[in-house]
Amino acid sequence: MIRQYKYPPVYEWKSLCERPLQNQENLSEQVKSVFDKVKINGDKALKFYTEKFDKVSLEDLKVSESEIIEAEQSVSDELKSAIKIASENIRKFHNSQQEEKKIIETTKGAFCWRESRVIESIGIYIPGGTAPLFSTVLMLGIPANIAGCKNIALCSPPDKNGKINPTILFTANLIGIKNIFKVGGSQAIAGLTFGTETIPKVDKIFGPGNQYVTSAKQLALNYNLAIDIPAGPSEVLVIADESSVPDFVAADLLSQAEHGTDSQVILLSNSEKIINEINIEIKKQLKDLPRKEIAEIALQNSKSILLNSIDEAIQFSNIYAPEHLILAVENAENFTDKIKNAGSVFLGNYSPESAGDYASGTNHTLPTNGFAKNYSGVSLDSFVKKITFQNITKKGIQNIGKTIELMAEAEELMAHKNAVSVRLKYLENES
Amino acid sequence: MIRQYKYPPVYEWKSLCERPLQNQENLSEQVKSVFDKVKINGDKALKFYTEKFDKVSLEDLKVSESEIIEAEQSVSDELKSAIKIASENIRKFHNSQQEEKKIIETTKGAFCWRESRVIESIGIYIPGGTAPLFSTVLMLGIPANIAGCKNIALCSPPDKNGKINPTILFTANLIGIKNIFKVGGSQAIAGLTFGTETIPKVDKIFGPGNQYVTSAKQLALNYNLAIDIPAGPSEVLVIADESSVPDFVAADLLSQAEHGTDSQVILLSNSEKIINEINIEIKKQLKDLPRKEIAEIALQNSKSILLNSIDEAIQFSNIYAPEHLILAVENAENFTDKIKNAGSVFLGNYSPESAGDYASGTNHTLPTNGFAKNYSGVSLDSFVKKITFQNITKKGIQNIGKTIELMAEAEELMAHKNAVSVRLKYLENES
Repeated sequence: MIRQYKYPPVYEWKSLCERPLQNQENLSEQVKSVFDKVKINGDKALKFYTEKFDKVSLEDLKVSESEIIEAEQSVSDELKSAIKIASENIRKFHNSQQEEKKIIETTKGAFCWRESRVIESIGIYIPGGTAPLFSTVLMLGIPANIAGCKNIALCSPPDKNGKINPTILFTANLIGIKNIFKVGGSQAIAGLTFGTETIPKVDKIFGPGNQYVTSAKQLALNYNLAIDIPAGPSEVLVIADESSVPDFVAADLLSQAEHGTDSQVILLSNSEKIINEINIEIKKQLKDLPRKEIAEIALQNSKSILLNSIDEAIQFSNIYAPEHLILAVENAENFTDKIKNAGSVFLGNYSPESAGDYASGTNHTLPTNGFAKNYSGVSLDSFVKKITFQNITKKGIQNIGKTIELMAEAEELMAHKNAVSVRLKYLENES
Repeated sequence: MIRQYKYPPVYEWKSLCERPLQNQENLSEQVKSVFDKVKINGDKALKFYTEKFDKVSLEDLKVSESEIIEAEQSVSDELKSAIKIASENIRKFHNSQQEEKKIIETTKGAFCWRESRVIESIGIYIPGGTAPLFSTVLMLGIPANIAGCKNIALCSPPDKNGKINPTILFTANLIGIKNIFKVGGSQAIAGLTFGTETIPKVDKIFGPGNQYVTSAKQLALNYNLAIDIPAGPSEVLVIADESSVPDFVAADLLSQAEHGTDSQVILLSNSEKIINEINIEIKKQLKDLPRKEIAEIALQNSKSILLNSIDEAIQFSNIYAPEHLILAVENAENFTDKIKNAGSVFLGNYSPESAGDYASGTNHTLPTNGFAKNYSGVSLDSFVKKITFQNITKKGIQNIGKTIELMAEAEELMAHKNAVSVRLKYLENES
């Protein structure tokens, strides 16, 4: 079912690493027209599109206090405490990403440092549909919380009864998000971009979504907003050797495959035996999956590749640059230094991707589609800016003044030079 | 000459903070056609455009070893040592941005951490024209160096004699950049995006440029590249009180104004007296500036605003979100906590923007146009990705397994759940 390759020559690796071509329908015109309408008509436009796309007519876009209370009651205590445990772990890990101020005296009398400042207003988009992605509320809401975001607006499309999934509401409320709006698709992103009577304008938009949402986030960039990372279908690359448990690897590959028909899973190994065993396990496990049809299609895009060694597998993986990389090999920690491009890495037999998706504490908003070469996943850094500061003393400017003057002059920027010269002259007269 | 405002009411601040509308000529079609040609014809297209736009016909796009040696000889020793001093400071400051690995045990047996990995291939664009911006070579090349970038390609347009400014070549060579290409404009960005016979394809493009370069960098995003930060005209906001020296502030404002006709300078103060004195100084200093005509036009877009207090000025500045913020006030360091949005901040009377532009060690590639609200300036972070790692022990997965299972089930992702269940079952049988 997964296409198998044996010892492909190195010159074929690059093409083996290519993602399946995405359905690049040009949605930008359609999305632009939604933006234009939302910009002019605000809430009216949002309600119009909600009726059109979500098939529900809403009086009020904002989730009410009583809806949140109601939602809280409908979530089981067991699930509630699971969500709390996960949120503690996510909080611990993202808390550790805070940076302390380091003041560097680069030249005697010239002190330079960086300080983090929160991005004050952010939007979080949570898709609707069958799977209610409350885990993404944790992954985006908790670092926003730690960073100190003042204004967090969460948008998610309503169902046909005009409701948002109760677990999403419970989770948002748990981490103190009060502004939750029943609006989805490109109209939600447009609302966050311009602001409406109900939805606040934000400075940065986070969260996954379908192709309309993705296209809308791209368009928001043109209006001076920032976004988390470019989007693409989810993917995992597993490197397995004879020490790995076929049952586990099969389950990991399937957990990625069930995400969507466009998901991609790659299996690399130095053992043909283990590849065969994993394939047998995949077939076994697939039978019982509720999302079997989705996973089956995803597996058709997928590959298992037999290579000479784990080192070679890591070289291949660095070219692929997977969103998730599972190193299900003996002494996995010995290979970490060789990993150059990946979103999140899972070491050993007992670190399934699911752990990072939900509860170990790492973020699950990660670069896909090869973007692990040039983008980091979401972290506390995504919610702050780092501002540089400098404090130069009289002595300091006397120490580096001449350097600045010479360089400014060579760049033919005499006013830049003069900003130093006036100070040096003043200090000369003073002494 | 600078337009003056006195105690504008708070509701007017937002409109006072608006940047002058930029000439939003739609260049994207033109730039797209350059991209298409470079993608297909490679070097041939680059040479064609170089002849068309830079009016010079080149045999070889790559700067030769002998050109570098020649350049080295033509730079004065004084300037060379200034560049070396600046580069030491920049190196010190960016070195301090390295992050040490912190392993966090989020749950007993679940270990999570981040590691930085370099973005291996980057492109640096350095504009040509009158002012040879060798300082930008330092600001981008040095952190790239520290991060360990393997492939650094520097592009800069040739002059009519087919040469690149010697100080640019000297500086690039000083920090070990060997691949320097004589190509500018959108064709240079296209070359870095697709790669040609001579120019390597890169993963991220850095550096300033005119509107064609800016538009081309935007377009490169569509081909899975990353860019440093969105571009906009340079700007400074100075907050002055009676303790500031009018001569200094005038020089700082002019050093920004000389950048380009679209530069913007804002002066805020709680003292009408000091505003007037600064204005007198501006007129005096302007007379002698070689780039007087440019500065004069820039000053027409500029504003001085009298406010009630320094606190109020900082509130205003936070709305404006300046690229450069100079706090030329008494005890400037007492106000830093109140600064929410800025690219780089200069404290006190002896920290001119020029210091950060050249030699104090901070980076001068900063967010403009209000992007200081949601973007950081360039730093070591811009040249790396941070990869998350996790290593979960048998005990660890037993500790958080149930939490993951419950959450995966509630999201209706049963294969995600199963990836944990198979492991828990296996461990149960093992014991």
